[in-house]
Amino acid sequence: MIRASILGATGYAGIELVRLLYVHPEVKLVHLVSQSFADQPISSVYPNFKGIFEKTCSRLDIDQIAEESDIIFASLPHGASDKVIPLLYEKGKKIIDLSGDFRYKSVEIYEKWYGSSHARPDLLKVSAYGLPELNRQEIIKTRLIGNPGCYPTSALLALAPLVADDAIQPDTIIIDSKSGTTGAGREPSSALHFSEVDENIKAYKIATHRHTSEIEQQLGIIARHDVTVSFTPHLLPVKRGILSTIYANLKKHLSFRDVFDIYSNYYSSEPFIVLHEEGSLPEIKHVNGSNMCHIGFVVDKRTNRIIIVSAIDNLIKGAGGQAVQNMNILFGLDETTGLKNPGWYL
Amino acid sequence: MIRASILGATGYAGIELVRLLYVHPEVKLVHLVSQSFADQPISSVYPNFKGIFEKTCSRLDIDQIAEESDIIFASLPHGASDKVIPLLYEKGKKIIDLSGDFRYKSVEIYEKWYGSSHARPDLLKVSAYGLPELNRQEIIKTRLIGNPGCYPTSALLALAPLVADDAIQPDTIIIDSKSGTTGAGREPSSALHFSEVDENIKAYKIATHRHTSEIEQQLGIIARHDVTVSFTPHLLPVKRGILSTIYANLKKHLSFRDVFDIYSNYYSSEPFIVLHEEGSLPEIKHVNGSNMCHIGFVVDKRTNRIIIVSAIDNLIKGAGGQAVQNMNILFGLDETTGLKNPGWYL
Amino acid sequence: MIRASILGATGYAGIELVRLLYVHPEVKLVHLVSQSFADQPISSVYPNFKGIFEKTCSRLDIDQIAEESDIIFASLPHGASDKVIPLLYEKGKKIIDLSGDFRYKSVEIYEKWYGSSHARPDLLKVSAYGLPELNRQEIIKTRLIGNPGCYPTSALLALAPLVADDAIQPDTIIIDSKSGTTGAGREPSSALHFSEVDENIKAYKIATHRHTSEIEQQLGIIARHDVTVSFTPHLLPVKRGILSTIYANLKKHLSFRDVFDIYSNYYSSEPFIVLHEEGSLPEIKHVNGSNMCHIGFVVDKRTNRIIIVSAIDNLIKGAGGQAVQNMNILFGLDETTGLKNPGWYL
Amino acid sequence: MIRASILGATGYAGIELVRLLYVHPEVKLVHLVSQSFADQPISSVYPNFKGIFEKTCSRLDIDQIAEESDIIFASLPHGASDKVIPLLYEKGKKIIDLSGDFRYKSVEIYEKWYGSSHARPDLLKVSAYGLPELNRQEIIKTRLIGNPGCYPTSALLALAPLVADDAIQPDTIIIDSKSGTTGAGREPSSALHFSEVDENIKAYKIATHRHTSEIEQQLGIIARHDVTVSFTPHLLPVKRGILSTIYANLKKHLSFRDVFDIYSNYYSSEPFIVLHEEGSLPEIKHVNGSNMCHIGFVVDKRTNRIIIVSAIDNLIKGAGGQAVQNMNILFGLDETTGLKNPGWYL
Repeated sequence: MIRASILGATGYAGIELVRLLYVHPEVKLVHLVSQSFADQPISSVYPNFKGIFEKTCSRLDIDQIAEESDIIFASLPHGASDKVIPLLYEKGKKIIDLSGDFRYKSVEIYEKWYGSSHARPDLLKVSAYGLPELNRQEIIKTRLIGNPGCYPTSALLALAPLVADDAIQPDTIIIDSKSGTTGAGREPSSALHFSEVDENIKAYKIATHRHTSEIEQQLGIIARHDVTVSFTPHLLPVKRGILSTIYANLKKHLSFRDVFDIYSNYYSSEPFIVLHEEGSLPEIKHVNGSNMCHIGFVVDKRTNRIIIVSAIDNLIKGAGGQAVQNMNILFGLDETTGLKNPGWYL
Repeated sequence: MIRASILGATGYAGIELVRLLYVHPEVKLVHLVSQSFADQPISSVYPNFKGIFEKTCSRLDIDQIAEESDIIFASLPHGASDKVIPLLYEKGKKIIDLSGDFRYKSVEIYEKWYGSSHARPDLLKVSAYGLPELNRQEIIKTRLIGNPGCYPTSALLALAPLVADDAIQPDTIIIDSKSGTTGAGREPSSALHFSEVDENIKAYKIATHRHTSEIEQQLGIIARHDVTVSFTPHLLPVKRGILSTIYANLKKHLSFRDVFDIYSNYYSSEPFIVLHEEGSLPEIKHVNGSNMCHIGFVVDKRTNRIIIVSAIDNLIKGAGGQAVQNMNILFGLDETTGLKNPGWYL
Repeated sequence: MIRASILGATGYAGIELVRLLYVHPEVKLVHLVSQSFADQPISSVYPNFKGIFEKTCSRLDIDQIAEESDIIFASLPHGASDKVIPLLYEKGKKIIDLSGDFRYKSVEIYEKWYGSSHARPDLLKVSAYGLPELNRQEIIKTRLIGNPGCYPTSALLALAPLVADDAIQPDTIIIDSKSGTTGAGREPSSALHFSEVDENIKAYKIATHRHTSEIEQQLGIIARHDVTVSFTPHLLPVKRGILSTIYANLKKHLSFRDVFDIYSNYYSSEPFIVLHEEGSLPEIKHVNGSNMCHIGFVVDKRTNRIIIVSAIDNLIKGAGGQAVQNMNILFGLDETTGLKNPGWYL
Repeated sequence: MIRASILGATGYAGIELVRLLYVHPEVKLVHLVSQSFADQPISSVYPNFKGIFEKTCSRLDIDQIAEESDIIFASLPHGASDKVIPLLYEKGKKIIDLSGDFRYKSVEIYEKWYGSSHARPDLLKVSAYGLPELNRQEIIKTRLIGNPGCYPTSALLALAPLVADDAIQPDTIIIDSKSGTTGAGREPSSALHFSEVDENIKAYKIATHRHTSEIEQQLGIIARHDVTVSFTPHLLPVKRGILSTIYANLKKHLSFRDVFDIYSNYYSSEPFIVLHEEGSLPEIKHVNGSNMCHIGFVVDKRTNRIIIVSAIDNLIKGAGGQAVQNMNILFGLDETTGLKNPGWYL
């Protein structure tokens, strides 16, 4: 059994990891670290675990965690990860970090978009961007994974095959994403107050959201030149799920079938990618509860544009599920281990 | 024109008062007092007022407010009202207080249920409980109104006719109420965080909610003896509206028509009471956006019990609308002035 | 492996069974019968199964189903079950019926509340009411299970210990239940139209809902005398979950701890019952996604009443999960097989 | 008083017209025509009118309606309007049609996008497109108004100033719109079933929605050349409101202030247009309940693109409110008569 610990276990991404790892057949949860709820059973914070899993949360003890864990998942605020993770990394542990701190190749881009300096830029050389469908070979070779952001996962999986195929004009890419509220975390605020979010939708951080830089970095790697995109996140009155509607100009006339072939070749053996046939489009209902990414598209002959729709569960493929998928890779397990459940639709 | 000022104008009850008084044909809004947003236009806090009403919020200045206002609405936290209101009252102003501080006849009951001592119990002798359908004659005679709580409004309007008629056994009264989140106000908290409220329902403060005592006081006045009830509030994943489902044993066999007659006699000329005919029941959709209270019921012969359902908009008949109705009474206007709009249903 | 087939697989209860049985380690799904979607893959009706489970739905063929299945789950409309199930029963199959047709001991009560005659009242002698926590010994002995209604499950699990202990006055029992919309099924109607349900709550079928009779039958068996209750269902603007708030007068003064002991003794080794400690109450968030029933309560000394709150997922413990639990019993498996997942909370 | 009748009064757009016209100071509602609910009081169909406005619905009687009405609002299905409206038009009545039948200049475009032939293309020469902010002079001169679609209203008000100023490249316009469910009407269907819409978002009719042609027609008139756009509608789990996020490439570098000036000049005296200052963006909460259109934008220097966000209430500025605004113009009233209420935010 793989001994796993979670730092930040009582945040929303953290508790989703607990939920997923609890049912993983090869994992034993060793430490649930939570500064806010230390010494309390996880089931008193999240009563869905009552009678099922009632482990007590603990304070952060680097030495003990390192000694008793084979892998550590860190779901800490941006800027905390880059202090704690180096200590664990230096003890030889495998680490999957859900913050933005180890997702970047370039410390300059990180520091520009995150507005703070990075404590350990040297580790960016050993860390891998943890989007297995795009970067599996790099993930296998390291033991420090920067688990992707939720929005970038939804955008990159939709765009990578077309960028790799040089089928679209990169400077026309527009990503209009709509997310559930769990992506914004557990901390109460006016912007996340029920009476403010209910029956509403709003755009936020237009042209300035940090995830823009993460999307651009990965598309640039695939395109082998700089890519600049427009990215607009929106907050939906739902808990879970991201739907991204993505626009780009085609470089030449392509039929639906041509484009479908590009996708199906690129993702020929990917267990977590589902392509929708012509006339069908992804919805967040299709993926909530699973690690799947659904992708559908329309080729608009009138405008010679492709409109792609992708859907993921922000807490699973956009956070905890992808982290488990990365763990499976690091330990040589089948990538779907513990992640085979269908979503819940209802 | 009646010059009106609002203390606590940027809370949810406060802003509903602004919305209602803005369209009231006999009222001019003079001061919108908000400690949190002083010197900011109300339309920057609530952008639905942009281009419509952009008055700047001000700090509390008792002298100025008293001088420039004919009536003051106070929507302050419990415990603040009883400090500020006496100052305004002593300047001869008409006052409608939306807190619990002036709803009680007995200071002992107030202090027991609110857990704090009352600064000016002497004023409880001059204040009137502002539920016009039950207490209009007392309201007319005073100029300090304790505007009722939202839950008590929904429960008392449903129960008063039957208690007055001695048709039900008072010790069997059970009030199961379901409320939207605006009743809990504007302050963010875990319990009101979107991701926690969405797709959920919960009961809270069972048998201990303060509004229990307010319901019991008024039913006791009608019954002319002490009445003890069970009251359970629930939090719904909606913004507005209270639905109360109320149970009581009938003292004797009564048909639907018998009971309907009791209600229609009691509320014979009330503009804000709507009785549902047999087979029809109130829903919060029926009242959201209006000052109406809808009442429907079922006589269950099997159990000799009556089940009453009442619906109000917690921010209107349960707060701001009722306050406007009280103002209309205090100034000798038709009670429906400014309150004639139908709700919005959709 | 147990070979299982589902009749009515594309209804909401049916598809929940598919979801649960797909991950059950001892079950192979053989036939998904759907008249509406015959010859279509289940994943085109419910795209959450795309890339996971794409079995084609079939038409009803009694002989083939009987030959190739060890157990049949029927999720058919009331009144269809009592035609189809006898044919399968006579072929010696194990059957779990999710309709109301085989839940009753008395055909008279069934016919009175369901308003139609029963095609095979003789089978009511061999069928068992499938609420394992109350009726496990009877379930084990038969092979025709009337799987309980969702509301009765939530009410009976909350009330059984107190009725068995003779701690409450049965004629004071009032059950105020609030349900998500999936309980009303997949068929579109005005009453379930999004624009009508959203931001609303309503009571319906007060004092006349069929589940009243099911609750009364089981409480009567426990009490060993007739029991009559008030039951009010409400429709919530959420998909899943039932919260029941239940009121009853205590026969004598009992402390919280006294009552807690009654519950914990009654449910001493039940894997799907969770009791909340004093000060904590169940919410539908706690159980959605799991087969758990959470129970909490308040003893109100002022009224000498107990107020009990129970929460279940209407599609799991209230339908498909309970059916799987019954199947586990019929095949001698551990009762929690395939049902160990925690709910999802978020 | 203006005598007004509504055809299709019990649909969602129809009932919103009833709500708005009921409070309009210059209007008397004469006939509420509803084939489905003829002879029933409107308040039994929409109980929010109980005790307020209980007029009985009637069947369609062209002669009587023409004789007793000064203006007729038609909220009929597409394809019914072009049969009924000519009859009323020929009797000299003023008519505001909420269907798509009289919005087009070119019958070819109408027939191509609506997939059916137009019964009276000759009337397209006398009808005016009823978007007052863009087309007031044409509206004044006619008495047959094609009231705009909800999506086109949100898109055109956001785009017209920039197209008129030649500030953007028309062939780069992308309109990503998100709508509440009332836009899809009152007719139940699987796609609008609560359990399907709740906690979901989906795109639909990508590149083929009829409103695309309406947007293109009006932008083409402003640009004086053909304009082709991408338009993607999405269905939100809310009742009301449309948020459109619109992308276009700027023709030259413009600052936020430059663009703001373009908008404020174009809309210098428009009572229903609100421009958001830098750093602020519209949300549907800001407009639900009012006839306002809020517009905000971000100039993205990195991509030299403008991202515009507009918000309207689909039932008011997107349907009934705009119809009232058109009526006010036709009768020489102040355009804001009956439309001064702020939205409700909560």
